Amino acid sequence: MELFNVLTVQQARATLQQHLSLQPQTETVPLLQGLNRLLAQDIVALEDVPGFDRSTMDGYAVRARDTFGATEALPAYIDVAGEVMMGEAAKGTLLAGQAWAIPTGGMLPPGADAVVMVEYTEELDSQTIGVTRPVAPGENLVRRGEDVAQGKVVLTAGHRLRPQDLGILAAVGVTEVPVLKPLRVGIISTGNELTAPDQPTEPGKVRDINSYTLYGQVLEAGGQPVLYGIIEDQFASLQQAVAGALAENDMVLISGGSSVGARDVSAKVIETLGNPGVLFHGMAIKPGKPTIGAVVAGKPVLGLPGHPVSAMVVFDLLARPIIAAAGLQKAETAFPLRAALTRNIHSATGRDDYLRVSLRRLTDGSIVADPVLGKSGLISTMVKAAGVAHIPLNKEGVEAGELVDVWLF
Amino acid sequence: MELFNVLTVQQARATLQQHLSLQPQTETVPLLQGLNRLLAQDIVALEDVPGFDRSTMDGYAVRARDTFGATEALPAYIDVAGEVMMGEAAKGTLLAGQAWAIPTGGMLPPGADAVVMVEYTEELDSQTIGVTRPVAPGENLVRRGEDVAQGKVVLTAGHRLRPQDLGILAAVGVTEVPVLKPLRVGIISTGNELTAPDQPTEPGKVRDINSYTLYGQVLEAGGQPVLYGIIEDQFASLQQAVAGALAENDMVLISGGSSVGARDVSAKVIETLGNPGVLFHGMAIKPGKPTIGAVVAGKPVLGLPGHPVSAMVVFDLLARPIIAAAGLQKAETAFPLRAALTRNIHSATGRDDYLRVSLRRLTDGSIVADPVLGKSGLISTMVKAAGVAHIPLNKEGVEAGELVDVWLF
Repeated sequence: MELFNVLTVQQARATLQQHLSLQPQTETVPLLQGLNRLLAQDIVALEDVPGFDRSTMDGYAVRARDTFGATEALPAYIDVAGEVMMGEAAKGTLLAGQAWAIPTGGMLPPGADAVVMVEYTEELDSQTIGVTRPVAPGENLVRRGEDVAQGKVVLTAGHRLRPQDLGILAAVGVTEVPVLKPLRVGIISTGNELTAPDQPTEPGKVRDINSYTLYGQVLEAGGQPVLYGIIEDQFASLQQAVAGALAENDMVLISGGSSVGARDVSAKVIETLGNPGVLFHGMAIKPGKPTIGAVVAGKPVLGLPGHPVSAMVVFDLLARPIIAAAGLQKAETAFPLRAALTRNIHSATGRDDYLRVSLRRLTDGSIVADPVLGKSGLISTMVKAAGVAHIPLNKEGVEAGELVDVWLF
Repeated sequence: MELFNVLTVQQARATLQQHLSLQPQTETVPLLQGLNRLLAQDIVALEDVPGFDRSTMDGYAVRARDTFGATEALPAYIDVAGEVMMGEAAKGTLLAGQAWAIPTGGMLPPGADAVVMVEYTEELDSQTIGVTRPVAPGENLVRRGEDVAQGKVVLTAGHRLRPQDLGILAAVGVTEVPVLKPLRVGIISTGNELTAPDQPTEPGKVRDINSYTLYGQVLEAGGQPVLYGIIEDQFASLQQAVAGALAENDMVLISGGSSVGARDVSAKVIETLGNPGVLFHGMAIKPGKPTIGAVVAGKPVLGLPGHPVSAMVVFDLLARPIIAAAGLQKAETAFPLRAALTRNIHSATGRDDYLRVSLRRLTDGSIVADPVLGKSGLISTMVKAAGVAHIPLNKEGVEAGELVDVWLF
């Protein structure tokens, strides 16, 4: 085996980013299909939202100064001169000394600058109200353009569309959105011990887990997974499979080959495919040490460990950020949950540790993380866990009660 | 307007649950399509995983007792009597005094009870190794059934399938999964001031936002949204639309009608549709007070506030849990992020407050929440926010630096 650098997680990410040159492609989709997609360009509002001053209360549009000094004992008497109908422009202009009835959401008549809540009025006769509390100009209304001002960038390129983002796009009249196409991610499982889930198991064989976990992880990250099945640990077959997957996808994940010999085959295959090829062979991380990181012709090719837990952890650290950004060079803005570990955990310095944890809420509202112990070959430990806690590489361990970052599944 | 109880959020949830009788339907889908779906029944493992004792290291299978007392100075000499091939059963039985070469993931030969890592052996000749460190029985291997034992429930009914859950199902040979059908959720926007996003806005009109935010929220909760568009605030049209949506869906969301008159129409319409009808009219919450909660023939019908922020918050509190459980009576197990608010926030007791916040990470690793202030009619405030902070109903407010629960979008 050739000697390659063993990198820290941060170095591994930076090294991959440095050599990537993915070309995100754009497509336009109807607004409703934009959920969870990444915007391909900035969206600028072509109109003010709302397009007019708008009441936020049921009551009366007035000139604020006509209410100044009003009290319950000495109400301001104002003529009811009109009514604003919901969804229509006022039929006229509000003059000094006038009040127009207005519903929540109604358009202020020209001349009005505030709304008196109906609770602070008394109806004297069908033509006159008494206002029992003064309002200031601008009170109880939303100003034209207060939600979104014309010309403003409402959402920026690379932003992942959430439900409220669909809402603001609807508000500014954008019904088709330019979005980035999801990265296509080829998934190859390798290992002579693997058998497909729909096959009976024979002695020495285990079913392929990583194709399924990685398929789910790619989808959740916003990518488009493409399965290539189980390929035997043999140079020619693996080379053919990886070359094919690389031609058809933006990224290739090869999992398995956990024995030294099998790992060698993966690395040798990747080296034959193009430049720069293998960038690191091993990461200072637990679990996930036997990871191969490569870039071929601008596309990432990752050799993930065969152990299901390790493969999932390394996917999250190296592949997910690239897929989630659809290949754009973009920093992540995710926030972990902070929880107190419930027992001492040892960790070697110089290595990032990712510890499976389940979570509990205590009565004081705080959240604690119980380590889920078990070998990284056991998928059942990931099923029991709610997330992984990160013990950074400069720490020798965590004492019970210390807060750690927990990344939820 | 009739007088209805104003309920707390907790009371409102309990009241709805008490009257719901949704009948979740089941379908069977291929494993890969099971991601994010809810299991319809418990899944029991029909086999042990792994099906045999399995090495976790490259090295030699041995009888542990043959290595007892071995040191670097005085290695235990053991005959290399065979080799285990990856994915195959050993061709024979390991006898006392023998070692068989074995790769990571290989099946232990009968007779062996431990694996010596290759790092702790020295090759004396092609037939003999010296073991320089003893191993205990069971060391460096995964026992048959250690990941999943035959007969064990691997996942329970109602569980939402994550990537690792697809993995464990693959491991036990389950390639088709019984899942609950998503709840169909009819979405109606009402308000004479509303216009569709693809239409030009006229004075007094604003574009329909809630259809789009709710569509996204229903999808994210795991439901199937069905849009009925904009219906005018008029008894006959609204009655026809809601009755139609109720017949075709498991849940109906009516948003808008923020003025008192429009709210009355919604409540009256719901009352005509069946029993028990309107259960509460108003919640002790900010934003989201003017919420109508109803159940008709076992199906929830919610009158959400017209303000986009309020509608989103109330959806999350009342509708999402029902949709996320596909109508099963099931407690939530979600965990909020805990963050320190950066400024004093006043809140009335007797009311749950949901405060839009953005988040920042400080250099000590802690996370702080900055309130995003603004009226609940402004969708732009939700776009700026990363989540909502909850100020519980028994609190008068939160002081700067106090930890609050933040629910991320």
